[in-house]
Amino acid sequence: MSTEFAALSVAARDPRLADAPLLAAARRRSPAHTPVWFMRQAGRSLPEYKKVRAGIAMLDSCRRPELVTEITLQPVRRYGVDAAIFFSDIVVPLKAVGVDLDIRPGVGPVIAEPFRTHADLDRIPELEPGMIEDIATSVGLLTAELGGTPLIGFAGAPFTLASYLVEGGPSRDLTKTKALMYTDPQLWRALLDRLAQISAGFLRVQVAAGASAVQLFDSWVGALPLADYRTHVQPSSAAVLQAVRDLDPSVPRIHFGVQTGELLPAMGEAGADVVGVDFRVPLDVATERLGGDYAVQGNLDPATLFASREVLGERVRQTLEAGSKAPGHIFNLGHGVPPEADPDQLKFVVDTVHAGKS
Amino acid sequence: MSTEFAALSVAARDPRLADAPLLAAARRRSPAHTPVWFMRQAGRSLPEYKKVRAGIAMLDSCRRPELVTEITLQPVRRYGVDAAIFFSDIVVPLKAVGVDLDIRPGVGPVIAEPFRTHADLDRIPELEPGMIEDIATSVGLLTAELGGTPLIGFAGAPFTLASYLVEGGPSRDLTKTKALMYTDPQLWRALLDRLAQISAGFLRVQVAAGASAVQLFDSWVGALPLADYRTHVQPSSAAVLQAVRDLDPSVPRIHFGVQTGELLPAMGEAGADVVGVDFRVPLDVATERLGGDYAVQGNLDPATLFASREVLGERVRQTLEAGSKAPGHIFNLGHGVPPEADPDQLKFVVDTVHAGKS
Repeated sequence: MSTEFAALSVAARDPRLADAPLLAAARRRSPAHTPVWFMRQAGRSLPEYKKVRAGIAMLDSCRRPELVTEITLQPVRRYGVDAAIFFSDIVVPLKAVGVDLDIRPGVGPVIAEPFRTHADLDRIPELEPGMIEDIATSVGLLTAELGGTPLIGFAGAPFTLASYLVEGGPSRDLTKTKALMYTDPQLWRALLDRLAQISAGFLRVQVAAGASAVQLFDSWVGALPLADYRTHVQPSSAAVLQAVRDLDPSVPRIHFGVQTGELLPAMGEAGADVVGVDFRVPLDVATERLGGDYAVQGNLDPATLFASREVLGERVRQTLEAGSKAPGHIFNLGHGVPPEADPDQLKFVVDTVHAGKS
Repeated sequence: MSTEFAALSVAARDPRLADAPLLAAARRRSPAHTPVWFMRQAGRSLPEYKKVRAGIAMLDSCRRPELVTEITLQPVRRYGVDAAIFFSDIVVPLKAVGVDLDIRPGVGPVIAEPFRTHADLDRIPELEPGMIEDIATSVGLLTAELGGTPLIGFAGAPFTLASYLVEGGPSRDLTKTKALMYTDPQLWRALLDRLAQISAGFLRVQVAAGASAVQLFDSWVGALPLADYRTHVQPSSAAVLQAVRDLDPSVPRIHFGVQTGELLPAMGEAGADVVGVDFRVPLDVATERLGGDYAVQGNLDPATLFASREVLGERVRQTLEAGSKAPGHIFNLGHGVPPEADPDQLKFVVDTVHAGKS
């Protein structure tokens, strides 16, 4: 960690956060009610989001503090969720250090020159706080507005960042990424170390500015067999989570990826307080696999948002029931909100969760 | 099952098949050596395939018996694998019944009018043997050439076929497919019943013409939580596997999908002899989850084909070791051969498997 990040100190937080259900559940204490928020709760499923984003490119929108604040707050206002998630994109810190990339609508992040050799490391300098002053500003504006509602800091994990850099864009099988990992483990490790510095720096700036929890998104890491995860990925993700802990050990760390049924314990051991579970593994099964040592987050199948209220309500209650077996449960979807989701269905989920199990 | 399919009778098979390692492993008997073949072993990774396919559209190539025979035999000649897999595409039987679709290079199957309502069922008539006489011809030509090497019959499972029909093409999350399943379970069931008839018919024609094993590919079913798989999918897949069994109970049935770690026992219970395992779940773990009741197939990570011989050899031996815990093991990749794979690496895998564990 560079000295500049080491010098960060944490802003005073709102005293009302002490009782926030999200933080209580994450710390395996008893919350007043089961907390709920949704991955990608801010975004294209909301008409008010489309309105404020109109004509503004995704990556630009992430760097305008007033806009980031508005977008981040929209789902908190509409749904009454128990946390805000900092509105950003996984590639924002890469762009901030100077990687030539763009987000193409309907495609995703596209990297101008995919990562191939040691020389390419020079195109990915370390992140310095001065490169993301606007992020600290956004977080400051947000926490002032949010009061007793926690803000969850957001960053992509080294593996998922690497997958975009190596593939050049979204990919189904991540063959190039895994090929690099297998053929040149030293270069792979150097890349992941660099990305760990960037990911950690991005989270630390958010925590220093007032975020009261963080989520590390290792969205595509489920493409790896467990043994490879442990050898080639876990150390760098652990470094990111440790860097957050070093700055403020009171900030819960949530660790999430999809298709990670086989990786759950290893993702916990990387230094998480809460393990995010995708919709494939029922939360009671996940809790068993995790040895009961972690709070869990999840995991309603986003596709159930398109079902009737009757079916949806039943699935919410099943998820609550399965989650009650864990030492702490943060209700969420098992993946991000689909852009086509009906906000009224999401509101119904929040109300059903808050009403409890019976 | 329509009477026409019921009238099929099974061709006499080559007596040398009695000792085929693939069939022995599938039947949980001791094979002379661990059998090995590769999903998508015939295809774009082979220069001889590209040569014979030049200028011929994918779906046309699947309907020309001489070409199907040549393509199916190519990997058997080159690698000395222990089985041929019938060269076809998952959507061939849909096209055969008259669904308007095409395979777009670089994209995959594209359906002209995606499936939405009960009326759309009329566009998916039942499959009759007369619609696929060329398939029987291809299988006949092949088994004559293959002698003591088993031919594995090929078909897509109802869920995966439905996913293409409903999405209109390949999709990451299958949101539309799952939405239909949740919102209109009756229509969903009617669709899957129809597709089960088509899938079963496609396999029965292959078995009647001489295929000595079958694999039911439910490629995308790992997108479902277990409870939904059991309620909404398993019955139709079970009907397909039962239809094969009814025709010839001696023909082993392999059942495979990716991301199915949570579904393995349910996929076995659908009526499989062999459960295919993707690369995420080590075969010893899979065997434990399956209660030791099934042979397993898999599951080398295709990305390891891009590693050094040293790493690749080690991974092959690890897979053999894990597979030795199962009552039967058919070596395979944990997913299809990537088009960029080097055939020499695949040959090395075959030789390493045949040389055994030490």
